[in-house]
Amino acid sequence: MTKDQISRFLSVALGKAPGDILLEGVKLVEVFSGRIIPTRVLIYRDRIAGVGPSYQHARKIIRCRGTYLLPGLIDGHIHIESSLLGLPEFARLAVRSGTTAVVADPHEIANVLGIPGVDYMIRASRGLPLDVFFTAPSCVPATTMETAGAVLGPREVRRLLKEDRVVGLAEMMNFPGVLFRVPDVLEKIEAARAAGKVVDGHSPGLSGPGLSTYAAAGVQSDHECTTMEEARERLEAGMMVMMREGSAAKNLKDLIRLVNAGNAHRFMLVSDDRDCEDLREDGHVNSILRRAVQFGLDPVTAVRMATINPATYFNLKGRGAVAPGYRADLVLMKNLRTFAVERVFKDGRLVMQQGRVMVKIPRRRDSSVKGSVRIGRITPRHFRISSDGKKARVIEIVPDQIITRSRLLTPKIEGGEVVSDPDRDILKLGVVERHGKNGKIGLGLVKGLGLKKGVLASTVAHDSHNLILAGVDDRDLAFAAMEMRKMGGGYLVVADKKVRAALPLPIAGLMSDARAEDIIQGLKRLNQAASGLGCRLSRPFSTLSFLALPVIPELKLTDNGLVDVKTFQVVSLFP
Amino acid sequence: MTKDQISRFLSVALGKAPGDILLEGVKLVEVFSGRIIPTRVLIYRDRIAGVGPSYQHARKIIRCRGTYLLPGLIDGHIHIESSLLGLPEFARLAVRSGTTAVVADPHEIANVLGIPGVDYMIRASRGLPLDVFFTAPSCVPATTMETAGAVLGPREVRRLLKEDRVVGLAEMMNFPGVLFRVPDVLEKIEAARAAGKVVDGHSPGLSGPGLSTYAAAGVQSDHECTTMEEARERLEAGMMVMMREGSAAKNLKDLIRLVNAGNAHRFMLVSDDRDCEDLREDGHVNSILRRAVQFGLDPVTAVRMATINPATYFNLKGRGAVAPGYRADLVLMKNLRTFAVERVFKDGRLVMQQGRVMVKIPRRRDSSVKGSVRIGRITPRHFRISSDGKKARVIEIVPDQIITRSRLLTPKIEGGEVVSDPDRDILKLGVVERHGKNGKIGLGLVKGLGLKKGVLASTVAHDSHNLILAGVDDRDLAFAAMEMRKMGGGYLVVADKKVRAALPLPIAGLMSDARAEDIIQGLKRLNQAASGLGCRLSRPFSTLSFLALPVIPELKLTDNGLVDVKTFQVVSLFP
Repeated sequence: MTKDQISRFLSVALGKAPGDILLEGVKLVEVFSGRIIPTRVLIYRDRIAGVGPSYQHARKIIRCRGTYLLPGLIDGHIHIESSLLGLPEFARLAVRSGTTAVVADPHEIANVLGIPGVDYMIRASRGLPLDVFFTAPSCVPATTMETAGAVLGPREVRRLLKEDRVVGLAEMMNFPGVLFRVPDVLEKIEAARAAGKVVDGHSPGLSGPGLSTYAAAGVQSDHECTTMEEARERLEAGMMVMMREGSAAKNLKDLIRLVNAGNAHRFMLVSDDRDCEDLREDGHVNSILRRAVQFGLDPVTAVRMATINPATYFNLKGRGAVAPGYRADLVLMKNLRTFAVERVFKDGRLVMQQGRVMVKIPRRRDSSVKGSVRIGRITPRHFRISSDGKKARVIEIVPDQIITRSRLLTPKIEGGEVVSDPDRDILKLGVVERHGKNGKIGLGLVKGLGLKKGVLASTVAHDSHNLILAGVDDRDLAFAAMEMRKMGGGYLVVADKKVRAALPLPIAGLMSDARAEDIIQGLKRLNQAASGLGCRLSRPFSTLSFLALPVIPELKLTDNGLVDVKTFQVVSLFP
Repeated sequence: MTKDQISRFLSVALGKAPGDILLEGVKLVEVFSGRIIPTRVLIYRDRIAGVGPSYQHARKIIRCRGTYLLPGLIDGHIHIESSLLGLPEFARLAVRSGTTAVVADPHEIANVLGIPGVDYMIRASRGLPLDVFFTAPSCVPATTMETAGAVLGPREVRRLLKEDRVVGLAEMMNFPGVLFRVPDVLEKIEAARAAGKVVDGHSPGLSGPGLSTYAAAGVQSDHECTTMEEARERLEAGMMVMMREGSAAKNLKDLIRLVNAGNAHRFMLVSDDRDCEDLREDGHVNSILRRAVQFGLDPVTAVRMATINPATYFNLKGRGAVAPGYRADLVLMKNLRTFAVERVFKDGRLVMQQGRVMVKIPRRRDSSVKGSVRIGRITPRHFRISSDGKKARVIEIVPDQIITRSRLLTPKIEGGEVVSDPDRDILKLGVVERHGKNGKIGLGLVKGLGLKKGVLASTVAHDSHNLILAGVDDRDLAFAAMEMRKMGGGYLVVADKKVRAALPLPIAGLMSDARAEDIIQGLKRLNQAASGLGCRLSRPFSTLSFLALPVIPELKLTDNGLVDVKTFQVVSLFP
């Protein structure tokens, strides 16, 4: 605000000039004292001028008849890319659910496009009715066993940390790198500390001196706790515990009993990943609140964990509370049980009412993030596998989990070459480097997809997001690769050299420009098409996307080949 | 730490290299979870490398046999000048009491010397076994009704906020200035916000829209609450409540019941003012903890309010907790009832053991802050008061309080002039501008000192710290003024043109270079001398120092003359 506006604002606060909006008859969820207070809230421009029963005058008076008033909800850790939504659509669904700020780790797009990808996210999130803050991705590439589209070293991280809306270093997944004191890793952490910004963690299973070391190095949070013991150890080491309840991983039920009145200020509720269907149908942070209360948490405590706590931790000034001088990011709710959202104010403007977003959300075209599938001509020959033994290492899918089993099975051989064997559900799997770096192709075998014919293909493949393909026929595999190049990334179901279903994800091969409803429909068509080819998985593309992630046991495939995750080494198909 | 030291530090944390000190068998007061945990704490250089039972190796192992281990205590609001101690002596007594950090508002010295005074405090606090942080004085001069030694405008405040150890804007006492939107006042607040630093408050009695306005303007704390209602209102407005328990004002008993497990993280324990005798005999923050527990507060909650809470609020990185990576500022205590201190570690060094400070405290000579009593030649004629009516306004002392009463009494007249009347205890009072600005002298009458002869004089006189004198005889008044000029400031008892007792305070006329024990002795001699002249007050120099403070009712004297505090106007002696 200008000096004149500040002066006017203070007159409004003092009751000497009328405000813009007076919310009368609210039950305020007051996150500092943890009480629910019947009161009035006066808004002027984008801020809260005052809270108290004596305010009378405003250009608009809204009678709230005992509705609960909460600070705008904040998701302290999310990968927006996993929703498949572009930022405007993500913002639309988030705001509908009462979210007014998120802290996003653009790890996925950074793995594809590097700094320009993160810059794009920052650009694309300007002017939305949602504050999008970012953390600087700390682990791009995630491992040395794959080819990513970019490398973010300390220099790039330092550059990102200069951005106002970059509030910290993103989850330091490379915790062995911290323990083994890898200079680049420590340099990134020091860069965040020097910038006065936070360092997020990711250290599943780490304990004892290992955890002390991780905390001593400057890591300040963790969202990977799955047991009370893990969470308690992090709490006592001075780390903020982010309790995760996402579309994939759900830890709330296992952790919630650790929270009490005296330590609640050290916890946050975060989603990590939220798919577009869950976002649309079930909500966002409000759905986490609902579940937290179902699991027995006091509702006001839950609200604090998704408002003032992340705002305090990330130093998001003027956010996370309803108090004089705070930003007028507000949510009205009928109750603190379902957390169904009635109205949302962002920066003092009514942006959502009864499910309808009331403001125009800017949608910019940006060709710089498109055309990210940079592969040469792929032919069926690229998928040929010479037989080199009897038993081969086969990746076995564990339904609904991101781990796999490593099996030794006898593949079908024809003319000295390994071929897919749909009868025994042993199919070819390929990962094609798609960032225009080296054109490497890794080949392997996968069990558990159930395809009788055809191919599934995706450019969403954690963490490097190369092109992953699985299927029965080498010609279909090659056809799918070429179709993907044309489409510029996304999900494909192919059979008999025909596209059976397709969902283009033109933004870095990860996200769509389309409306959420259309994407949800598109996913349904893809799943039906996959199912029509014999696939038995409920979310085949989600499963597919983790088959290339070489940090999760036991056997994965990257463009460098099969990775034995136990030894962190590339291994041959025939041992 | 250098990169090599960090690497070594992390090896120690991991248990791969020995630490410097292992504290074995401690009961750790863990301020994040609020639990007491039997464990071990490993120190390397100035930091905590790890916390946990598995650490074994260190160059020195200290068996603590169940002693409580606390983070070093932090006083979030203190005016060090009020102790009369120079910084080295203050640090010595603070450290003895387990204090390892303070946030000081150098308001007093700033009123005398301006920026150079604050710079001196910053300089003089380097290398002490105590971290001294500062807030930039916001109200110098405190009022327009007196002559201070300096003016700190927005430009000066901005300059101070650039200092690393200046962590915020000091208590904004001019709350009417905020409410009336005085540009300079708002500019100072904005300067602190722009620097990412906090804004401390001071708003006794402010409520409703006034308080909302004060908070909306950006004020984030208050240490002037005297009632539960006041404190609750500030808590709910998002302000941190500093509960004060100093040598003068004691508010703990009246406020303590407001604290509960769910809101305790919004409170701090602070002293505001602590005199040297209390510091030496009763302790510092530890004595506040003792009283808080006596008043029924849970001991661990009390500890949090004097460690992690101020560290979090003031953004004092790595302080306020015992956790990996935190600074090794530690206190060992036998119990959480008396909070008697056994040992203190500062930056990993043992600095206090059984009452003895173990490190050499640097004491620098600095002539720049001396010679601050800049007055011309004062003669008995300067204290002449012409009779100009029958009844005169008399300042009546209320024993042990800083308020006064305004009385209309008939003074004794001799030869057309007002003279002191020791029989009725109506004495002359003078305030002599001593900053070399304009040489103004304000004259008035005071009742309640009880002197039968002689004069008390002091250069400690809130808030401008001019020379204040009260006594029976004009010649003694003039003699005392001239003696004070020679001494360079301090406290004086004079009778019959002889110095009966003196305590030099050469640092800005406010603080001494001497040892605390000598200052305490000096104060006793002064009090005895005053008592020998008939004074009936227990702490006459403390009382005297507030007779010039024109913001506390009802009648005060400045170098501009008598101030009626109800109307905030200078008034004549004879109405």
